[in-house]
Amino acid sequence: MQLSERILGLTGGGSDGWDLFNKARQMMADGVDVTELTIGEHDIRTAAPILQEMHRTALQGHTGYASIPGTAALRDAVAARTEALTGVKTRRENVVITPGGQAALFAAHIAVCDPGDTALYVDPYYATYPGTIRGASALPRSVRARAEDAFQPREDDLRAAAEGARSLLVNSPNNPTGVIYSASTWEGIARVCTEADLWLISDEVYDSQVWEGEHISPRALPGMADRTLVVGSMSKSHAMTGSRCGWLIGPEDAIAQLITLSTHTNYGVPGYIQDASSYALGLGPEFEAEIAAPFRRRRALAQDILSAQNTVGLIPSGGAMYLMLDIRATGLSGDDFADKLLDTHHIAVMPGESFGAAASGHVRVAMTIEDAAFADALRMICRFAERLAR
Amino acid sequence: MQLSERILGLTGGGSDGWDLFNKARQMMADGVDVTELTIGEHDIRTAAPILQEMHRTALQGHTGYASIPGTAALRDAVAARTEALTGVKTRRENVVITPGGQAALFAAHIAVCDPGDTALYVDPYYATYPGTIRGASALPRSVRARAEDAFQPREDDLRAAAEGARSLLVNSPNNPTGVIYSASTWEGIARVCTEADLWLISDEVYDSQVWEGEHISPRALPGMADRTLVVGSMSKSHAMTGSRCGWLIGPEDAIAQLITLSTHTNYGVPGYIQDASSYALGLGPEFEAEIAAPFRRRRALAQDILSAQNTVGLIPSGGAMYLMLDIRATGLSGDDFADKLLDTHHIAVMPGESFGAAASGHVRVAMTIEDAAFADALRMICRFAERLAR
Repeated sequence: MQLSERILGLTGGGSDGWDLFNKARQMMADGVDVTELTIGEHDIRTAAPILQEMHRTALQGHTGYASIPGTAALRDAVAARTEALTGVKTRRENVVITPGGQAALFAAHIAVCDPGDTALYVDPYYATYPGTIRGASALPRSVRARAEDAFQPREDDLRAAAEGARSLLVNSPNNPTGVIYSASTWEGIARVCTEADLWLISDEVYDSQVWEGEHISPRALPGMADRTLVVGSMSKSHAMTGSRCGWLIGPEDAIAQLITLSTHTNYGVPGYIQDASSYALGLGPEFEAEIAAPFRRRRALAQDILSAQNTVGLIPSGGAMYLMLDIRATGLSGDDFADKLLDTHHIAVMPGESFGAAASGHVRVAMTIEDAAFADALRMICRFAERLAR
Repeated sequence: MQLSERILGLTGGGSDGWDLFNKARQMMADGVDVTELTIGEHDIRTAAPILQEMHRTALQGHTGYASIPGTAALRDAVAARTEALTGVKTRRENVVITPGGQAALFAAHIAVCDPGDTALYVDPYYATYPGTIRGASALPRSVRARAEDAFQPREDDLRAAAEGARSLLVNSPNNPTGVIYSASTWEGIARVCTEADLWLISDEVYDSQVWEGEHISPRALPGMADRTLVVGSMSKSHAMTGSRCGWLIGPEDAIAQLITLSTHTNYGVPGYIQDASSYALGLGPEFEAEIAAPFRRRRALAQDILSAQNTVGLIPSGGAMYLMLDIRATGLSGDDFADKLLDTHHIAVMPGESFGAAASGHVRVAMTIEDAAFADALRMICRFAERLAR
């Protein structure tokens, strides 16, 4: 039986970019000791007190249908965190809880694009972005950010792509590059969105992972709150990736419609997970800093190691749990470099090409293993690149 | 800022059918002692051993990203349950785990319809059906089942509607009517699907609630497994409504695409919830019978009470946690009857009209309160109808 064209075309027909990842997984399954630097997931698990709170409210009976927009307590906690981080007045009515940040990304595109509308995103990009847009039956159009600009998208490139588009999806702190958009990048984005009447979908799931400079939420820029939907999540900030609890923040009328959409697409998020999330948010910024601390340490380690050599370049990274390494001096593509590195040293990193053409000649390193092993792996990557570059 | 037409049009522009429900909720908030017979939710909570297992695996560390198709254990458990209930050979590759049955309904329509395609559903219907179809940018077209046929859809009515359609959504045991489709109804459905080359989306979330006759899964009918997607869920069978764990069962190639869709729309279901669900399925049919027992008892009570009077008709109900009462002898619409009943006796039932025009002149009673109170409320409803009918 024939499936829909949209589901058959979801990945755009090409490789899904996970060949290296799958090869590494297969090697591990075959018993090879692979140093795994591909995945954006903490090397700790969700903290026990959060799980205890989840269990407590589940046993107390919060196991029936939960409030579809999200519990009042969680919506209020998300609103308060957002207001504290961004200075933008945020009320419960500006928040809808979703089953994870990915569901929020998808819902945002359903809400602002009709089928056939063009939706912009910035290359390099998180692997699901174009498929998310296609899943919503919109047409993905990429805007290339350039390695020589440290992957800050240029205003002129955005403007050239904006013709006829409905929305622009951005992500800062950025996966895969680790870049934090500068104030001037954000000003350019805001100007283009205003001129071209675009919705801005701002994926801010790494907003607790800021190593240098300042995270700016574009919702705080003049006139932008009315045209911005912010994607957030408990995953990265609270080491709750598996709990699938995220949110969208936006204008009240958009959120009201998104709540109706939730009724028809997922019927809400488990009440006990929402209670655990409220509890976790109540632990405050100190807890978020504690969860982020390992990545901060490893990024400092990486800066030391990379500054001691000249072959591998480091894209100036201000945040997130990734480093984007420029390995063009080796003459190899990111795909070939990652493949040889895996074969030779059993170190798995993601080819830049997995995240779009703009990141070719780069590899993404997730800072998600313990410090000493991470430093060893990074030194090995540099030596490997030096040999190739000779 | 302008939202998409599809999200603004999700509810079809009319009332969402929940006016009575909301009025009852408001009365309760104001301190009125309302007998609440509107919601399809158990009067028990999720069993403690299931929650203990959830907590155990969460503490053990199953809190990171879980396998997106679903864990092997849960997919195998769902496949085994399906095979045992239906006799249809079902493997892990025929199953994708979804964040609840509603997400499965939505994903199924994304998978088989492109934007603008026509998707059929049977009226009366579960409240979210047309909005789910619209959310997938397909066009809902209803097929009227008739009260005089005990809401079994007629083959000719289905055939007349099938022209140019892509899919047919059916639900047996049925919410709101409590009807179980007969073998001949299923044969008609299968013929129409085959002739018109329709996908069949079969919502079987009430498959453990069968009071009379036999639940037939259309996937078991000759030639139908290749064109059928079955929606299932832990919600009703295991009193796990709030845990949002469901699934789709279908041909392997369709399931493979639906897994890719999950990656782009929700990124899977919490691992500890999947583990709890595997454990719950391991409790076997005995546990499902125990969860269903209160509704079985109350349905027997209702049959006794209703057979002792002649004003209120009972649609022959074979399953699910609902009774559909024919109150046309009162001369009132379902809306007016329910409204007066709420005002006069503080008993809340759902107007048939909330579930489509086909159920006008009826009200749906959820059998979701304790037996004695349920029997009292039902007697009161009959006396109220008798007074109105005089």
